[in-house]
Amino acid sequence: GVMESLISYAEEQPPSSLMTNSSSLKQESNESGSPKCVGGFVLVHAGAGYHSESKAKEYKHVCKRACQRAVDQLRAGALAVEAVTAALVELEDSPFTNAGLGSNLNLSGEIECDASIMDGKSLHFGAVGSISGIKNPVLVANCLLNEAQKGKLSAGRIPPCFLVGPGAHDWAVSHGIPPCPSEKMATRFSLSAYKRNKRKMELAEGTVPGQNRTKKRRQSSENGNGSGCLDTVGAVVVDLEGNVAAAVSSGGLAMKHPGRIGQAAHYGCGCWAENSGNMNPYSTAVSTSGCGEHLIRTMLARECAAAMQSEDAHQALLEAMQNKFISSPFLTSEDRVLGGVIVLRCCRCVEAQPSPNIQGILVEFLWSHTTESMCVGYMSAQDSKAKVSSKTGSVWRGVGSQ
Amino acid sequence: GVMESLISYAEEQPPSSLMTNSSSLKQESNESGSPKCVGGFVLVHAGAGYHSESKAKEYKHVCKRACQRAVDQLRAGALAVEAVTAALVELEDSPFTNAGLGSNLNLSGEIECDASIMDGKSLHFGAVGSISGIKNPVLVANCLLNEAQKGKLSAGRIPPCFLVGPGAHDWAVSHGIPPCPSEKMATRFSLSAYKRNKRKMELAEGTVPGQNRTKKRRQSSENGNGSGCLDTVGAVVVDLEGNVAAAVSSGGLAMKHPGRIGQAAHYGCGCWAENSGNMNPYSTAVSTSGCGEHLIRTMLARECAAAMQSEDAHQALLEAMQNKFISSPFLTSEDRVLGGVIVLRCCRCVEAQPSPNIQGILVEFLWSHTTESMCVGYMSAQDSKAKVSSKTGSVWRGVGSQ
Repeated sequence: GVMESLISYAEEQPPSSLMTNSSSLKQESNESGSPKCVGGFVLVHAGAGYHSESKAKEYKHVCKRACQRAVDQLRAGALAVEAVTAALVELEDSPFTNAGLGSNLNLSGEIECDASIMDGKSLHFGAVGSISGIKNPVLVANCLLNEAQKGKLSAGRIPPCFLVGPGAHDWAVSHGIPPCPSEKMATRFSLSAYKRNKRKMELAEGTVPGQNRTKKRRQSSENGNGSGCLDTVGAVVVDLEGNVAAAVSSGGLAMKHPGRIGQAAHYGCGCWAENSGNMNPYSTAVSTSGCGEHLIRTMLARECAAAMQSEDAHQALLEAMQNKFISSPFLTSEDRVLGGVIVLRCCRCVEAQPSPNIQGILVEFLWSHTTESMCVGYMSAQDSKAKVSSKTGSVWRGVGSQ
Repeated sequence: GVMESLISYAEEQPPSSLMTNSSSLKQESNESGSPKCVGGFVLVHAGAGYHSESKAKEYKHVCKRACQRAVDQLRAGALAVEAVTAALVELEDSPFTNAGLGSNLNLSGEIECDASIMDGKSLHFGAVGSISGIKNPVLVANCLLNEAQKGKLSAGRIPPCFLVGPGAHDWAVSHGIPPCPSEKMATRFSLSAYKRNKRKMELAEGTVPGQNRTKKRRQSSENGNGSGCLDTVGAVVVDLEGNVAAAVSSGGLAMKHPGRIGQAAHYGCGCWAENSGNMNPYSTAVSTSGCGEHLIRTMLARECAAAMQSEDAHQALLEAMQNKFISSPFLTSEDRVLGGVIVLRCCRCVEAQPSPNIQGILVEFLWSHTTESMCVGYMSAQDSKAKVSSKTGSVWRGVGSQ
């Protein structure tokens, strides 16, 4: 079970280990001068944390499919924000990930999802929190983003960027997103995990008649570490025009209190995307995974994006993870911080332009995690298939070919 | 009515006007060397925006009462986070403010509140969003903050920092916060405003049978500007030990979609508090007011707090409001940005220490707004009564006496 695995893993793992992987590749459009249908890049994750061999295999498959979906969109001329949405839908649809279908159940045995998306071009943001009965929460977040870009509502009302709970569900349905019965959202796996976790909680709390519950309520961390919090999914994309987008989706902590919102719905915490501009030489996109409360209080997505404006991306990410997360003054009271990020940055690349007709964009992509492993997949629009990695502490670095 | 007033005001007002007020005072503990019951300072606001003469009078009264509440707490030896909570309760309890009792009604005619609190000492944060049936949302936010500081829950679960909707309500009640029937939350004023706004929307949307609704849906801003979004309440406090805290509470936009979350529940956007530390010479606390979506996307509370580490607080706040809000790249698509902040910063003041027994803390407090007015109140623990201001564009500067 997830809880058991995480507990044993967490005890073996030194608290502040940090794995960082980085890669870069140049991408160029085709010689015809038409930038359509080539170019673009996607990096996805299926969560940071320990993955059993059998689960790792499923995660690799879904990461590949998600990359392919995004690349299909990019090849069809889609913008980054559309491609990142397509990748997320695939990740959510997997019954093995803790997002959309098959999400963790909360204390009441219900599924409540968080998701958000950010468009680096418009800098608009859309988020849903604690939403039930919607198969693909990212579609609601994306719809909020799109609607916000259309301007004010009737009588000058400002459109929402963040909706939660039943209101979010009703808004989604009224905007054409079909509802999904709750019983179809849960899987055999998520239901059996719920029963196991419930029994474990009852044992820990000693909720046998006559026992004092409040005294038993607080427990040392050896009893667990918020299992199931680590398989949030996310993606970052750059399209051929160089626009970036990022998205994240999560079923949240197993056995969370109903109404609990994690980083996946929280601006600056779950994802970040920002095209290059006056102050920023690089376009950056980030998506995070890990314990929501830690990622909220450190605003890790935005911090990593800001760090990516330094020259050495690899070094900057290492430092950001160390100073803004592991040793963050915001987390001094926490005995262990668990999280991971995927990062993409890119800039117009002068050297990569053999002729004025060809646009060169240098894409660098990295991931880093304090957890033992992190399952990621990546693919360029020119690749025939996606690559995946869930290796422990591997550092992969290279330059993609044409 | 509020909507009407705001519309006419918004048309007269130049879009990027900026009023900034700043003040500073030294506070010293008594000569006995015992720091108890003296010292501390509170600054509160009842929202940025146009206030009619009659409403301004009510706002001044409640700001004074809120200051007195916080000072009572400080004199009794309370920490900043307790004092700021006391101020917020008073502001929420006023039927005239758009927070707690008398909040704006949403599209469905219901009250849903947002509130959050941050403790500069522990850097913990608590927030509730879209919560109904609780008279004082800030008490739930504060309770979340306190519970999170106690460490993990049973079976190693991480305590939530942000709860929304019915789950937030149930959590509050299970933690001893009494429920309040919805019909007691609405006031005659909020109910009649709802009826007026509803009629206005129906007119704007042309929801007469046979008319095409979608075509009429988007309206130019001349029909309003999200009325009622501007009277969020908030407070910032420093206690005698120099700890800072900040809080904010809001009923949200009038006629908002159910489930809509504004800046008041959003980390880094509604409030910020951070004691001085290795990197920060000053302790800072900020609370914001205005259109939630704009304040979320600019993370205005955190940006202003960061700016306050510059030497010249007045200049730094002016620049932050100009560069991080009015001309923010995140709001380029908005035709008008409305918001205000109250800011407090302090540091140990060497010159203010006539003897080693006396702790001197230099307190500077400022407020700034793009709106025509902003109602604020402030009081030191040594003052006999609070001062208030809702003047248009006044700049007040001074040094408080002993």
